[in-house]
Amino acid sequence: MTTPPTDPWSAAAAEPPAGSTDALQPTTGTAEHPADIADQLQQVEPAEAAAALRALPLDTASEVLSELDIEVAQEITARFTSRELGALLDRLPHDEAADLAAELPAEQQREVLAQLAPGVSSQVAALLRYPEDSAGGIMSDRVLALPIDSTLDQALQAIRRRSEDDLAGSTYLYVVDGQRRLRGVVSLRNLLFRGADRRLGEVMSPEVHSVRVDADQEEVARLFSQYHYMAIPVVDAEGRLVGQVEASQAIGIIQEEATEDMQRMVGMSGEESVFTPWRRSVSRRVPWLSVNLLTAALAAMVIAVFEETLAQWTALAVFLPVIAGQSGNAGMQALTVTIRSLALGEIDRAAVRRFLKKEMAVGLLNGLTFGTAVGLAATLWKGSPVLGLVIFVAMQLNMVAAAAAGVLIPLGLKALGTDPALSSSIFLTTVTDVAGFFLFLGAASLFVLWFGHLY
Amino acid sequence: MTTPPTDPWSAAAAEPPAGSTDALQPTTGTAEHPADIADQLQQVEPAEAAAALRALPLDTASEVLSELDIEVAQEITARFTSRELGALLDRLPHDEAADLAAELPAEQQREVLAQLAPGVSSQVAALLRYPEDSAGGIMSDRVLALPIDSTLDQALQAIRRRSEDDLAGSTYLYVVDGQRRLRGVVSLRNLLFRGADRRLGEVMSPEVHSVRVDADQEEVARLFSQYHYMAIPVVDAEGRLVGQVEASQAIGIIQEEATEDMQRMVGMSGEESVFTPWRRSVSRRVPWLSVNLLTAALAAMVIAVFEETLAQWTALAVFLPVIAGQSGNAGMQALTVTIRSLALGEIDRAAVRRFLKKEMAVGLLNGLTFGTAVGLAATLWKGSPVLGLVIFVAMQLNMVAAAAAGVLIPLGLKALGTDPALSSSIFLTTVTDVAGFFLFLGAASLFVLWFGHLY
Repeated sequence: MTTPPTDPWSAAAAEPPAGSTDALQPTTGTAEHPADIADQLQQVEPAEAAAALRALPLDTASEVLSELDIEVAQEITARFTSRELGALLDRLPHDEAADLAAELPAEQQREVLAQLAPGVSSQVAALLRYPEDSAGGIMSDRVLALPIDSTLDQALQAIRRRSEDDLAGSTYLYVVDGQRRLRGVVSLRNLLFRGADRRLGEVMSPEVHSVRVDADQEEVARLFSQYHYMAIPVVDAEGRLVGQVEASQAIGIIQEEATEDMQRMVGMSGEESVFTPWRRSVSRRVPWLSVNLLTAALAAMVIAVFEETLAQWTALAVFLPVIAGQSGNAGMQALTVTIRSLALGEIDRAAVRRFLKKEMAVGLLNGLTFGTAVGLAATLWKGSPVLGLVIFVAMQLNMVAAAAAGVLIPLGLKALGTDPALSSSIFLTTVTDVAGFFLFLGAASLFVLWFGHLY
Repeated sequence: MTTPPTDPWSAAAAEPPAGSTDALQPTTGTAEHPADIADQLQQVEPAEAAAALRALPLDTASEVLSELDIEVAQEITARFTSRELGALLDRLPHDEAADLAAELPAEQQREVLAQLAPGVSSQVAALLRYPEDSAGGIMSDRVLALPIDSTLDQALQAIRRRSEDDLAGSTYLYVVDGQRRLRGVVSLRNLLFRGADRRLGEVMSPEVHSVRVDADQEEVARLFSQYHYMAIPVVDAEGRLVGQVEASQAIGIIQEEATEDMQRMVGMSGEESVFTPWRRSVSRRVPWLSVNLLTAALAAMVIAVFEETLAQWTALAVFLPVIAGQSGNAGMQALTVTIRSLALGEIDRAAVRRFLKKEMAVGLLNGLTFGTAVGLAATLWKGSPVLGLVIFVAMQLNMVAAAAAGVLIPLGLKALGTDPALSSSIFLTTVTDVAGFFLFLGAASLFVLWFGHLY
């Protein structure tokens, strides 16, 4: 960690926190949006980015920091003193401060929290207790909540007292009882155009979808895409309101989940970006590449078993990658639809059965089409209908196996309680390679036994 | 198309349109959210779903229809009369009506539009003119806009006159000039707590991010994830306000784009779901599987060229899938990061160079690790350091080629103006298969020439 010669924000740190305007359109004051500045800083070396951040006004710097790719932010925070970080985090909404603090080493995290104003520090610490990928980990504690017996006039007064930043993005007023349990919701507009003497309990909608603070962020993403809400309230185990997730924030989570699905499918951590340092990329990717090597060894062993047949009929080697590769690709198509459907919550038990049947039908048809094509090509090339028949049979069976594996692998992973995308493409190609080589070389060996020749 | 015996909504169709409450939380009146009813209907046969939809109250039925997977919706609308569809579409926000109308056969679309109230019909027809995947195709024309010289009191009056449904989801009031050109924005809350005599021009923020009506929906998704806005205004070529996209709606588009990327990567249309009928799945997937077959034929030809070497040293066949498969998997990792980064708009020209260097370094290290492992295994198995060396060299070179291909294929597709994800996994495995087989068998042939033997 480098200690800078001067502490540029030490004076500014005494000013009251200004909060974030990120949900407000547009940002007032600066010509450039903090997200755009963050984009530029991500393109330069960390040391240079840290210097550029120090040159910015404190409010802008804190917003830029919260917009950075998390791995770039980490490299920069490692270059800052706890005091500097305290000044930066003090200015952010608590949830964004907690997200940044969560990435700090334990000791530095304690030091930085000690720099924050006492009220802020305890609230940031409270948010830090929720797992990063849970509703609690992504929610904002900026939420507008009032007792059920308040009058509309009291509600308006309460809103007037909150700062603009504090309400940025709020579309709903939540109605709670004496124990702060969520009882209903009123849209801000509704609040403003009803009689001022009426009570919240009379005008609120009592049916309100909420999410438990320990729910996975995937569940939150699913609720947003299912219902098109502007915000979803977050409650604890006793039904007490503890925060909300806004649609504008949910967008980031949905992007993250989609990236994760796509990366996990091919054996990655789900957290890599172009900004991930190469050492970290390597250490994250190697474990699954090692698994891939072991499964490739399985496929190699199948070939080794049939080495004698191959030695006699080397043309078989030519068709190995065609049969395994074509099924692998067809299986990936089934796999991809399954993973996305699970992420979007589209399939229940009944749908699964119908979907599996459908994919098997597609596999059958694909096998028929491509088995015939490759079988005919082989027949013509070597003048051998026997070779063609072997290829047709192997391809047909392997296409159906690939379709089944494409559906069942993600479902199986889900049933085991892990991510359905988790390196599923590696498992799938194992199935299509091992089954493909075995079916093809096995059938060839059998046919040679029966007919005495292949070509 | 089946004509139903009775027309259950013919009476109801005379009532005034009620609009949609989908962005409001919760839906009032019905116990079940239309999105949940839609989920149930998607699980049953289309005929049954159509009957269930007819049994619902018209307002609910129209909302359920707009929540259905588009391919299920199509199968159901094919069973409805134009009059029934007119009654349903009349009740939806114009953009949702347009989305459904866009899927109808041309003649039926004309008939249905003729059933709508004249004002509604022309507005739906206007939205139908924008391409489906453009900002115009996804925007809502429910937007709150007032002239720049209006007073805040006039603005409040105007809001009061709009129905609750009509304002659902609106967080901003847009300020326009005499030609309806976008000039600024005021948040609703701000509007309500400033002096009633002040003019919009004085209190608005003049810097407002907007998107052109012909922009791709990918661009809209990128703006939302970059800036966390609650809504983005849509303007025409002259800068006139024509609609807005809300964050709660953008979530659906972002899910769609992520699904598309993932599907396109493996050679699919990007529009498939578990509900896609199998015939349609087949006809959409076969074209890219055929391309895959052609590229597999290339790889097969490389093997055929070296058939003689293979016949002599059949152990080579055992390592073919290991070398090609391991590089294919490593290349997919680089490919996936590149595609997502392009979708999220993370890489510019400078970053591309750094990222390519990084991936090449990762490829080099992977080649070193796995080339050594497999090379040693081969040396021990056949007692041949020559075979081990051949494998090491081929694996090292192919890992670097795979890394480069993983970065350059999506960038190349983008430079050609197509989707960077477009069947990129097929192109990648072509590179890793062809290069892998060529490097491995080529090196083996050379070494046999030099040493006279492999093992």
